[in-house]
Amino acid sequence: MKVLITGAAGMIGRKLAARLAGDGALNGTTVDHLLLVDVIAPEPPAGLAGRIETKASDISNNPDVAGLISGRPDVIFHLAAIVSGEAELDFDKGYRINLDGTRYLLEAIRAQRDYRPKLVFASSIAVFGAPFPEAIPDDFFHTPLTSYGTQKAIAELLIADYARRGFLDGIAIRLPTICVRPGKPNRAASGFFSSIIREPLAGEDAILPVEESVRHWHASPRAAVSFLLHAASLAGPQLGGRIALTMPGVCCTVGEQIAALRRIAGDKVAARIRHQRDPMIMRIVDGWPRRFDARRAIALGFRAEDSFDEIIRVHIEDELGGRIAA
Amino acid sequence: MKVLITGAAGMIGRKLAARLAGDGALNGTTVDHLLLVDVIAPEPPAGLAGRIETKASDISNNPDVAGLISGRPDVIFHLAAIVSGEAELDFDKGYRINLDGTRYLLEAIRAQRDYRPKLVFASSIAVFGAPFPEAIPDDFFHTPLTSYGTQKAIAELLIADYARRGFLDGIAIRLPTICVRPGKPNRAASGFFSSIIREPLAGEDAILPVEESVRHWHASPRAAVSFLLHAASLAGPQLGGRIALTMPGVCCTVGEQIAALRRIAGDKVAARIRHQRDPMIMRIVDGWPRRFDARRAIALGFRAEDSFDEIIRVHIEDELGGRIAA
Repeated sequence: MKVLITGAAGMIGRKLAARLAGDGALNGTTVDHLLLVDVIAPEPPAGLAGRIETKASDISNNPDVAGLISGRPDVIFHLAAIVSGEAELDFDKGYRINLDGTRYLLEAIRAQRDYRPKLVFASSIAVFGAPFPEAIPDDFFHTPLTSYGTQKAIAELLIADYARRGFLDGIAIRLPTICVRPGKPNRAASGFFSSIIREPLAGEDAILPVEESVRHWHASPRAAVSFLLHAASLAGPQLGGRIALTMPGVCCTVGEQIAALRRIAGDKVAARIRHQRDPMIMRIVDGWPRRFDARRAIALGFRAEDSFDEIIRVHIEDELGGRIAA
Repeated sequence: MKVLITGAAGMIGRKLAARLAGDGALNGTTVDHLLLVDVIAPEPPAGLAGRIETKASDISNNPDVAGLISGRPDVIFHLAAIVSGEAELDFDKGYRINLDGTRYLLEAIRAQRDYRPKLVFASSIAVFGAPFPEAIPDDFFHTPLTSYGTQKAIAELLIADYARRGFLDGIAIRLPTICVRPGKPNRAASGFFSSIIREPLAGEDAILPVEESVRHWHASPRAAVSFLLHAASLAGPQLGGRIALTMPGVCCTVGEQIAALRRIAGDKVAARIRHQRDPMIMRIVDGWPRRFDARRAIALGFRAEDSFDEIIRVHIEDELGGRIAA
């Protein structure tokens, strides 16, 4: 089986590639060719018996995309995207990568004869924006409040149409906010959800820019990878023509996040969080979804963590080698 | 005020142009320049004191579109589209006109400096496809089952984002099935809703290809024009960021349509309808929406007919000069 990952140098892409290399198989079939693509060539993961190819490729360059598809990968994980903040700052770049790039990919697939790959698209809960009900149901309408969310919503619609027409077997999974993100703090408005856990566990202070009552929807990087793999195992007809699914997650407040950190790592670690309100971040976060009724995804076998405690334990296991800076 | 209508040679476009020419004004402001554009140059309507310009222009040709916008119309009615059946048969053409063409228009607007026109987009209830609830609420998600419906849904999302970013003041109105369409029968799957009224009133036989229990959502051509004009009178902030609205309509079964025809024109006219089931049309119509809860549009002042009797009377007044072929 040949597998293509776009956006393979990103945090989720790297973890997905490492998992595929480690497993050596996808849906019970040996992966004998793994093609990893990003705007800079991704680092190849260790361990795959089959061939690993890495490539620097621009998804918004039509011939580049046609070249990726000409080798007819069986499964495509389409993760490449300009993130929310950048798509908002650079309108043209966001549409070029997130919309045009996705269309080039779909068109390159359609241009092949007798070819109907599995396409797993990483969508986002950013397709929703306030106001919404207390728990957003699977049949709630697209209400993006960012260009990024708009582009993800459009990609969902395109993939549904290309799947309906038989050009591909598509699924779009709306990832929760991924927490705890490893690595350095970034300037994403959602960054604090991770940094208030990651930095204290590493012995550093973290800033909390919002009220502890802020409620949000989380899943670990490990869960995100499991969502992508499980999505690749589902057959189109199981989705009943409705190919976009909100993934399950852990719904909790920032206060509950901090309480979980205290339970797992103690008072001293939790005390490294400093409250420093940021009105701009508070306003942005106010428009974000808080809770979903993800019953369709759960019925289809997607599983997230059961608690924020578990999300923290996944971080300690996967990123810290089991060690906390006390 | 300068007004641009794309798709001005179509049935609704012609009626809208005639109404604007007759009124001489839009939202209380004199229309001194009416620019009518279609793939073939539209016929100019009579009566406008101001300038009427007609133009053959291809909405899927980017320089053509930039040329239309360079004159900075104050209000743009964007009606140009490949219809449902054709967009399904010709995948490329549907996306080229309905998606790329709309993006060219939006980009041409964005490219102008200090320019923020009112854009009224004719969307469609084809953004919805079965299964859905008994009455589709305003917050029900996009579930198109055609490429046409997909393209309309994407255009709604794009216009919402361009409006949010301040590039234009946009509104998308989802028109019900327009009934009674004047003119010759066409091969659209929805054609029978009009032909079972239009042909008998003109002294001709009509074929009913579905059961009388089929329920659907209708408004007259006159109501469609009133929706477009009313949409142009609304200011963006009244829409609360949610710029797509399902228009009100008359919900009735085919049997109720026929009963209305009998009340208005008598048994002899109603007897001109011949039942001849068509399994393909029955299957297509089965996926269509039947009823909407259009409370947002009604609260914003949009008005449709109150009954199918009224829809028939509008047809007799507007198209038949008040006369029925007995």
